[in-house]
Amino acid sequence: MSKLRVAVIGAQGRIGSEAVRAVEAADDMELVAALGRGDSLETLTEKGVQVAVELTHPDSVMENLQFCVTHGIHGVVGTTGWTEDRLARLNSWLDASPRTGVLIAPNFSIGAVLTMVFAQQAARYFESAEVVELHHRGKADAPSGTATRTAQLIAAAREEAGLPRQEDPTTHGLAGARGADVDGVPVHAVRLRGLLAHQEVLFGDTGETLTIRHDSLHHSCFMPGILLGARRVVDTPGLTFGLENFLDLG
Amino acid sequence: MSKLRVAVIGAQGRIGSEAVRAVEAADDMELVAALGRGDSLETLTEKGVQVAVELTHPDSVMENLQFCVTHGIHGVVGTTGWTEDRLARLNSWLDASPRTGVLIAPNFSIGAVLTMVFAQQAARYFESAEVVELHHRGKADAPSGTATRTAQLIAAAREEAGLPRQEDPTTHGLAGARGADVDGVPVHAVRLRGLLAHQEVLFGDTGETLTIRHDSLHHSCFMPGILLGARRVVDTPGLTFGLENFLDLG
Amino acid sequence: MSKLRVAVIGAQGRIGSEAVRAVEAADDMELVAALGRGDSLETLTEKGVQVAVELTHPDSVMENLQFCVTHGIHGVVGTTGWTEDRLARLNSWLDASPRTGVLIAPNFSIGAVLTMVFAQQAARYFESAEVVELHHRGKADAPSGTATRTAQLIAAAREEAGLPRQEDPTTHGLAGARGADVDGVPVHAVRLRGLLAHQEVLFGDTGETLTIRHDSLHHSCFMPGILLGARRVVDTPGLTFGLENFLDLG
Amino acid sequence: MSKLRVAVIGAQGRIGSEAVRAVEAADDMELVAALGRGDSLETLTEKGVQVAVELTHPDSVMENLQFCVTHGIHGVVGTTGWTEDRLARLNSWLDASPRTGVLIAPNFSIGAVLTMVFAQQAARYFESAEVVELHHRGKADAPSGTATRTAQLIAAAREEAGLPRQEDPTTHGLAGARGADVDGVPVHAVRLRGLLAHQEVLFGDTGETLTIRHDSLHHSCFMPGILLGARRVVDTPGLTFGLENFLDLG
Repeated sequence: MSKLRVAVIGAQGRIGSEAVRAVEAADDMELVAALGRGDSLETLTEKGVQVAVELTHPDSVMENLQFCVTHGIHGVVGTTGWTEDRLARLNSWLDASPRTGVLIAPNFSIGAVLTMVFAQQAARYFESAEVVELHHRGKADAPSGTATRTAQLIAAAREEAGLPRQEDPTTHGLAGARGADVDGVPVHAVRLRGLLAHQEVLFGDTGETLTIRHDSLHHSCFMPGILLGARRVVDTPGLTFGLENFLDLG
Repeated sequence: MSKLRVAVIGAQGRIGSEAVRAVEAADDMELVAALGRGDSLETLTEKGVQVAVELTHPDSVMENLQFCVTHGIHGVVGTTGWTEDRLARLNSWLDASPRTGVLIAPNFSIGAVLTMVFAQQAARYFESAEVVELHHRGKADAPSGTATRTAQLIAAAREEAGLPRQEDPTTHGLAGARGADVDGVPVHAVRLRGLLAHQEVLFGDTGETLTIRHDSLHHSCFMPGILLGARRVVDTPGLTFGLENFLDLG
Repeated sequence: MSKLRVAVIGAQGRIGSEAVRAVEAADDMELVAALGRGDSLETLTEKGVQVAVELTHPDSVMENLQFCVTHGIHGVVGTTGWTEDRLARLNSWLDASPRTGVLIAPNFSIGAVLTMVFAQQAARYFESAEVVELHHRGKADAPSGTATRTAQLIAAAREEAGLPRQEDPTTHGLAGARGADVDGVPVHAVRLRGLLAHQEVLFGDTGETLTIRHDSLHHSCFMPGILLGARRVVDTPGLTFGLENFLDLG
Repeated sequence: MSKLRVAVIGAQGRIGSEAVRAVEAADDMELVAALGRGDSLETLTEKGVQVAVELTHPDSVMENLQFCVTHGIHGVVGTTGWTEDRLARLNSWLDASPRTGVLIAPNFSIGAVLTMVFAQQAARYFESAEVVELHHRGKADAPSGTATRTAQLIAAAREEAGLPRQEDPTTHGLAGARGADVDGVPVHAVRLRGLLAHQEVLFGDTGETLTIRHDSLHHSCFMPGILLGARRVVDTPGLTFGLENFLDLG
């Protein structure tokens, strides 16, 4: 079988340089281009790139994707900053190139994505649900975006299943003890030196608890998801938003 | 809405007496019969029972179910000892009573069932997978049946996804350190006074791990699953084997 | 060796009835009296009780202890509500009965006490420290008294070791996400149906974390500490406050 | 206050280069020499080094320490391969230089050392004790040396306290399920891609469990212990074996 011809755009960044190594190490892929700041996008067509992994910056991602889609190169995109307007422009390019696929994912960690999927599935079956996220001490926001999103998904699944909003049993206590309230789901944020990024989703009902925990120990955790995205995007024309759409959970 | 008319057969056992309390506490159910050893099954028809929760013994379960199915009473069955022959007999009764449903479940803990379902779903996405189960010191078998079953499901999902059998990296060590080998998935059994029944499924790949943990802290953990079974079995004619079939994981 | 002659005062309460069973089951003890409401304290002297386990109520504990100490009966006390004034009165009785010992402990769970001791010992060696406590949904206060006390002990140990007060790195977030602030140590309180009483103390520094976790799965968890107290109090005249004083941590 | 003048010997190794950065980042230390293979030891005296951090190889450590001790330079030693004979030679040099101190530590992770200390302290108070260690898939030995050592310390503490050897309750099961038997303490070894080095010590008794968990997420976890060793060794003449001797656990 011929190998998938892959390029990394943003190859000198922290995640980009991991992606270069990951593509090189994959048996079924060949790294045919690694573009940094100032390198010409023409290289992608000259090298016959099939999939471009885009890991640059909101300032450059649109130009890069316009070039890729126009030339029939599939995209796997980790760059953030997506707005309605940007998505509409991307979709118009894809409409004009109907065999090309683009995957945009806010999180390429398969473990983080599965944690959210499982949390949603479990939510309707437990009386109580809370989220604890734990990160390094350099993190400026609390709770994390992933934890907030997880809590929102849990709240929506509870509502859909007809479960009532959780009532806090606390009648006296210290401010903050019961965490942040995200649509009725308490979210607690721990900050410890030595940690990277971790999340625990806790469910409880009569006599039992279910805990789903994701630990990111190194930022290379995004690589399996990026490789999976590259393998699947070539058979998935149009825009796919979220890695969960490429996971088989049948 | 009229309440579901429920009976418990085996109402004096440890789980049966929990079930009596759970049905009584459920807003949408009415406990109309609680049968113990020697009580007549006729009570079920006299009281207009819709669902019978069968928590007795392999010696009596067949007689009880024959009566229920023949009289159009749905069954939720926790009694064990099912063989091909027994299932065939039960199916023949159900064939003759095509609107009646019976749910048999080896495990009515929703948390335990979800742990197995999620483990199966996650298995194909991680290079490594192991199972740790932890139980009280009165447990005579190791590993637990649930842990063995979970490991088998993981091994099957890996094989289906084309993942290789896990190789043990250990070249020197003490016998037993790497656990029991269940189809290539190591299973470790901890026995501690103070515990009841707990299981952890661990997955790992580049830079991240995913852990699914189920803790049973009290044997009342089977009640939400029994109630769910009773609610769903009335709309599910025929035989259903395994509570997972009644969980919506869409 | 002759067995220790033990009485339980408050034998009909939830913890008291556990204590009756625990003393009966102990090889080195004999349960010689089990007093309930209205029973005469004279039984204690008539039966030659050496140690009385006092598990009643703040309304009755002073009268019970006055009788015990005056008659040279050692006490192991789980009843709460101790004030400076009450302790002074108890000490005056002990002064008059110099061979008699009384142990008062706010928590007889050895695991909970060790968690606090270890947290104090570890605190000076880690840049970061936080506490997560997890309880059943019937708990009205948050955080738990044990978690608050643990955080205070950590804060005191940090200060003694010259560590700075922890700065929260959060610059934007949701109110409550970072927990309650107890002397600079964040404390997070989770409330889940199915849980009983659990606490996790987390420490972090460069490249590593240390977690000390205590799980109470049943209220019988106080029994080993009560028995230990009874064995040790007979050789420890005067007042001892806190089970940690009877633990050998050399 | 004048800064401690520190050298790193073996400065180009993986741990050595971390140590260089850690000493440079410490407010109370000055890195005055960083020696690699072939560099002259004379630099240590020329630069007025007070403490040498020795992170080389069993082939070179003796020569390096002989030079240091003879010249009154204190040593903090992470190199392994210590035998009775080697320790005797080192002690003879120290006898001739009575103000000089050397710390040798098999493990400079404060979290790992505290885990062992706490495990020893707790062991006598719980009926059951087991160890689970979890490492990356490159690890060739199972269980880890640290886990084996921890289990031996637990077994010794149990014996000293008069606790019986743990009996395995298992009557039928799969080989290996109950782990490796280290002096009656079961030790289980998990190997997952994505992990680095982790250990959990589990204790159980009536109604409760206590868990002490250490997670090494990066090999920089040895740095706080190395810095602590350097600060303390200057006031501790003679040989100290084990970082635990420099921890204040009063």
